[in-house]
Amino acid sequence: MAAPRIPLIVDVDTGIDDSLALLYLLASPEAELIGITCTAGNVNARQVAINNLAWLELCNAPEVEVALGAEVPIITALMTTEETHGPQGIGYAELPAPTRRLSARHAIEVWIDNARRRPSEITGLITGPLTNLALAVKLEPELPRLLKRIVVMGGAFNHPGNTTPTTEWNIAVDPDAAKIVFDAFSELPDDRRPVICALDVTERIELHPHHVAELARVAGSTPDEVLHPDDEPGTRSTASNRVIRHLSDAVRFYMEFHRRYDQGYLAHLHDPFAAAVALDPGLATLRPATVDVELAGTLTRGQTVADWRGMWGRRPNADIVVDTDPDEFFRRTIERVGALARSLN
Amino acid sequence: MAAPRIPLIVDVDTGIDDSLALLYLLASPEAELIGITCTAGNVNARQVAINNLAWLELCNAPEVEVALGAEVPIITALMTTEETHGPQGIGYAELPAPTRRLSARHAIEVWIDNARRRPSEITGLITGPLTNLALAVKLEPELPRLLKRIVVMGGAFNHPGNTTPTTEWNIAVDPDAAKIVFDAFSELPDDRRPVICALDVTERIELHPHHVAELARVAGSTPDEVLHPDDEPGTRSTASNRVIRHLSDAVRFYMEFHRRYDQGYLAHLHDPFAAAVALDPGLATLRPATVDVELAGTLTRGQTVADWRGMWGRRPNADIVVDTDPDEFFRRTIERVGALARSLN
Amino acid sequence: MAAPRIPLIVDVDTGIDDSLALLYLLASPEAELIGITCTAGNVNARQVAINNLAWLELCNAPEVEVALGAEVPIITALMTTEETHGPQGIGYAELPAPTRRLSARHAIEVWIDNARRRPSEITGLITGPLTNLALAVKLEPELPRLLKRIVVMGGAFNHPGNTTPTTEWNIAVDPDAAKIVFDAFSELPDDRRPVICALDVTERIELHPHHVAELARVAGSTPDEVLHPDDEPGTRSTASNRVIRHLSDAVRFYMEFHRRYDQGYLAHLHDPFAAAVALDPGLATLRPATVDVELAGTLTRGQTVADWRGMWGRRPNADIVVDTDPDEFFRRTIERVGALARSLN
Amino acid sequence: MAAPRIPLIVDVDTGIDDSLALLYLLASPEAELIGITCTAGNVNARQVAINNLAWLELCNAPEVEVALGAEVPIITALMTTEETHGPQGIGYAELPAPTRRLSARHAIEVWIDNARRRPSEITGLITGPLTNLALAVKLEPELPRLLKRIVVMGGAFNHPGNTTPTTEWNIAVDPDAAKIVFDAFSELPDDRRPVICALDVTERIELHPHHVAELARVAGSTPDEVLHPDDEPGTRSTASNRVIRHLSDAVRFYMEFHRRYDQGYLAHLHDPFAAAVALDPGLATLRPATVDVELAGTLTRGQTVADWRGMWGRRPNADIVVDTDPDEFFRRTIERVGALARSLN
Repeated sequence: MAAPRIPLIVDVDTGIDDSLALLYLLASPEAELIGITCTAGNVNARQVAINNLAWLELCNAPEVEVALGAEVPIITALMTTEETHGPQGIGYAELPAPTRRLSARHAIEVWIDNARRRPSEITGLITGPLTNLALAVKLEPELPRLLKRIVVMGGAFNHPGNTTPTTEWNIAVDPDAAKIVFDAFSELPDDRRPVICALDVTERIELHPHHVAELARVAGSTPDEVLHPDDEPGTRSTASNRVIRHLSDAVRFYMEFHRRYDQGYLAHLHDPFAAAVALDPGLATLRPATVDVELAGTLTRGQTVADWRGMWGRRPNADIVVDTDPDEFFRRTIERVGALARSLN
Repeated sequence: MAAPRIPLIVDVDTGIDDSLALLYLLASPEAELIGITCTAGNVNARQVAINNLAWLELCNAPEVEVALGAEVPIITALMTTEETHGPQGIGYAELPAPTRRLSARHAIEVWIDNARRRPSEITGLITGPLTNLALAVKLEPELPRLLKRIVVMGGAFNHPGNTTPTTEWNIAVDPDAAKIVFDAFSELPDDRRPVICALDVTERIELHPHHVAELARVAGSTPDEVLHPDDEPGTRSTASNRVIRHLSDAVRFYMEFHRRYDQGYLAHLHDPFAAAVALDPGLATLRPATVDVELAGTLTRGQTVADWRGMWGRRPNADIVVDTDPDEFFRRTIERVGALARSLN
Repeated sequence: MAAPRIPLIVDVDTGIDDSLALLYLLASPEAELIGITCTAGNVNARQVAINNLAWLELCNAPEVEVALGAEVPIITALMTTEETHGPQGIGYAELPAPTRRLSARHAIEVWIDNARRRPSEITGLITGPLTNLALAVKLEPELPRLLKRIVVMGGAFNHPGNTTPTTEWNIAVDPDAAKIVFDAFSELPDDRRPVICALDVTERIELHPHHVAELARVAGSTPDEVLHPDDEPGTRSTASNRVIRHLSDAVRFYMEFHRRYDQGYLAHLHDPFAAAVALDPGLATLRPATVDVELAGTLTRGQTVADWRGMWGRRPNADIVVDTDPDEFFRRTIERVGALARSLN
Repeated sequence: MAAPRIPLIVDVDTGIDDSLALLYLLASPEAELIGITCTAGNVNARQVAINNLAWLELCNAPEVEVALGAEVPIITALMTTEETHGPQGIGYAELPAPTRRLSARHAIEVWIDNARRRPSEITGLITGPLTNLALAVKLEPELPRLLKRIVVMGGAFNHPGNTTPTTEWNIAVDPDAAKIVFDAFSELPDDRRPVICALDVTERIELHPHHVAELARVAGSTPDEVLHPDDEPGTRSTASNRVIRHLSDAVRFYMEFHRRYDQGYLAHLHDPFAAAVALDPGLATLRPATVDVELAGTLTRGQTVADWRGMWGRRPNADIVVDTDPDEFFRRTIERVGALARSLN
């Protein structure tokens, strides 16, 4: 008998690492992807929607509802980061225009309607700003109890930020949304606390060229069709496998970005790691804490703060990932995404 | 040929003065009330809904959709003020339980759906915190252009606050909602700028016992059936006219509250004034300004700030009521609400 | 027997209206000027010092210690406003370089030393940012009790600001200093509460050309030697009386500034009014309030907030000037400064 | 020929770990202690002064000026922490009342006068809130250039706070003072940047009972005269050596405090580590960063923020200690303080 599948709603601002997160989920037989909701962040929300549809189509994925969500944050003006993710959010990759269509529903309806129909079953994975989920809980305050659990990529605790010295991108884009979500998900049983994958751990998930080469090999391509540290910037992959080719083109952009900021020719796989944790929390060592978001600071607006020791006298409202085995994550990623790519040869 | 009627959606946190605003609208033939949406503020949103239904029923009003909205503010924890408005929000009044039913729709759907069906026709009147409207514009960013105009009771500019030294209740309850609304309604043509009725003018709209006596007289009751400054606190009206009786019981509570804070045996009719302005902006002298809301202040969070002279270099986004003729307002109120009450004898 | 004189320390950021405040004090026989301390504000502190010495010399004033104080605010970076007060802070006036010398002492020593030597005798008048006084109370926490009373020109309560929509210049330049001073002077007997002359009243003190003409006449000059609304901008006075001439040249700049901001060809005499109140509080109607300064606001940092009704539950710490008779103020100013000028013919 | 001695001004809020820092300096022949200035923090400033005098006397130290400084922070109300440091700030220790006298000068005069007399020679060590130094730089803006370098114990960067989840005690007590100091010391040559010993490194300086036993042994006492994890709380030392006895009584309190907060029977030697670094920066691995202090945050007021990667576009203004060899620190401490104690047998 097959193991039960894990129903998932995924909220993304695709995004290079969101793309790989999506591939990870499409490649994972235990994932039942019931909705992909789009938010503005790395790029604008309409581009996010196109990217999602294009990846689904490229992978011959089963039909899944893709819905447009909030195009701007709750209060703050939108910022996007084409510098990090490329003009369309997928680096140098140029995916064929999708024939699949956006849902007529708003992202928030996808969240609320599915959660009501399958109470306590659905895992929510959010790898972008929390705008959609924040609006959904304002309209349906029961949502935290209707979901099984959420896994959030976001924040930085005892680790430098990647947007300002203390803030991480997803939270910095919409701090108010993050505050709304952490507050709304505060009263859950311990085993349903939000799981937070912050920079403290995701910056340890370093994708190196050798990982991509291995992925190409598993997919039936040759490693020299993908990226090397000494390639000219902007070199395109020659892989005939379309997933490998586009993925390599996306990732190259991301690695060049990291190198430009003195972090080496590598890429931090924030979102794919969160996807892997959503499917298997056992991949992560969790530590409970009370998490809140600074909204008023001059230097620190958008900073996530963790109270590890109960200084605020409030019970823990999150399980923060404090450790993982990056090698195991990469083993799964290469095996799964490699197999998915190979199946499309 | 009859003058065209004014289609209105009214968002309220009923509330004693909201009650009288409702009566004003029900008594005004030019008002076409197409929806009443309920928000938390003076009392909780469910009580607000009951109050609205009860007033409609008491007045034999035509059917109008009453929808429940946000039960808590966007970010801030809810505060209510039973001290000002009584345990049920209607002072000493005890309205018969309504047989009318709440709409199955959320307040936000009422706003968005009606605005889409009748673009540029509907006037929005908001006499409570701006939570519902803020959520509605997040889900339908076109809403500001789909409405004809909004009239807001809220804020204090060059006038002391009534909640903290510089903040007014409706804004103080949900400052983030106010910020969202003022930002979202910033790009409209000059003649569609939000009209703001702030304490600067509404505290000049002083309801005195003689006004209530006159209202009773118009309705066919005798003035001595209603309130006097030297009544025992809590004295109930003996008027046989049910509108006059309940209105008097509500208003008495409100006057006692004002007297307790050294403002005299009177009541400020914030919300009825805004209702009158929504039907006839000519009642008010307007002055354009750029309005914003302080979200970060230690003393001033929730304060509305008006830039009258372009110091911020941003174009005006609101028309603030800077003057009015209170006598004319009371003339209309007494004539209209008096007639409505008399018709129910 | 002569009435007792009023010993004063004056802290200034001279400044056109500070200049006239100084002249008012020099022209008032009851004023015993024991120290003038210089702070940065309208112009930098060293220029302030030169201006003070130059005015003293121009008027053949008795020796008085002039001491340099803080050159920058407590925390905020210094802003100055040559646009309002001219490149040297005295409009178009060009005073002869003074031969008098600055004190070797720091402004703070002048405050502390004099206050200790003459406890409960000295009135402090501050017409610039409160930086010096703030530092003085940090070094000598007894200072509030050692002074008789302070009179402060600063703040805006139920009135628009002149620096941002809700802030007044002196407080906006150094909000932290203002906070320190209002806190430190909080525990005084009622009759020694700081007196605050804010924009609410000082913008009602409008100097018009006819006032200057009358002043010239009293001094023995002819009115046509001074300013008129239809003069070319920058026209210099032809008065032979040196005080009238320089004063007119200073004031013209100030009036042109006000006209440029649509306030008319006039000037608000903030500082001279505060000087007049320091000598005779009877000129002002005072109302007690609890005053605090917003330090954290995004829009409102530097705003003074008055709690008129005890909402904070803290006792009043200031007497705010809520009314005055501007004509009486101008009568005194013209009589006194006119006589001083005449005496120098 | 003897190595040149290091002239030091030490600003302390003694405090248990400040006490040991003082002993470390008194025990170090290369330290020339020219002034000890007292600030409020762990306990009030007057108690700090008594503690300093008492330790000096206990150790037969040469005469050194001890001056009282600010008794309250710049803006924030004072908080002290007798829970951490005991009712007098020295745990269970009861030092004989000192016969030595406080200086007649204010702490700020000690800083400014010495710095002017020996420009570029003096190292400033601050192990308490930065209130005194902040006031000193406001009065003498040249102070940063007149000192050789400052070493500050304070802050937490990528490490949890000990006062709130993100703030360290010394900075949290007076955030404004810290901001003033970091700003004022911003424009120095690279080799004179302030050295910051934050919790990131000082919480790795764990004093364990075996360290105290070893110290006792070096001093000629027996280890069983000092503390053990299984002692009854409050057990007093029986050591005949007075330094060892009082030090043990102080440290026991501190260890019990740490144990109460689940950190083990140990004590973090924040201040002694900073003292050791002040005498020998080679003990620490430094990394430049731009440091600022959050003043406005709701959750994060008083948090130190380090920009390690130039995100703010401002040049580094501090050298943060990022690594050290705790064993080497303890070797020096035991050898030096042990010898000092032994010399008093």
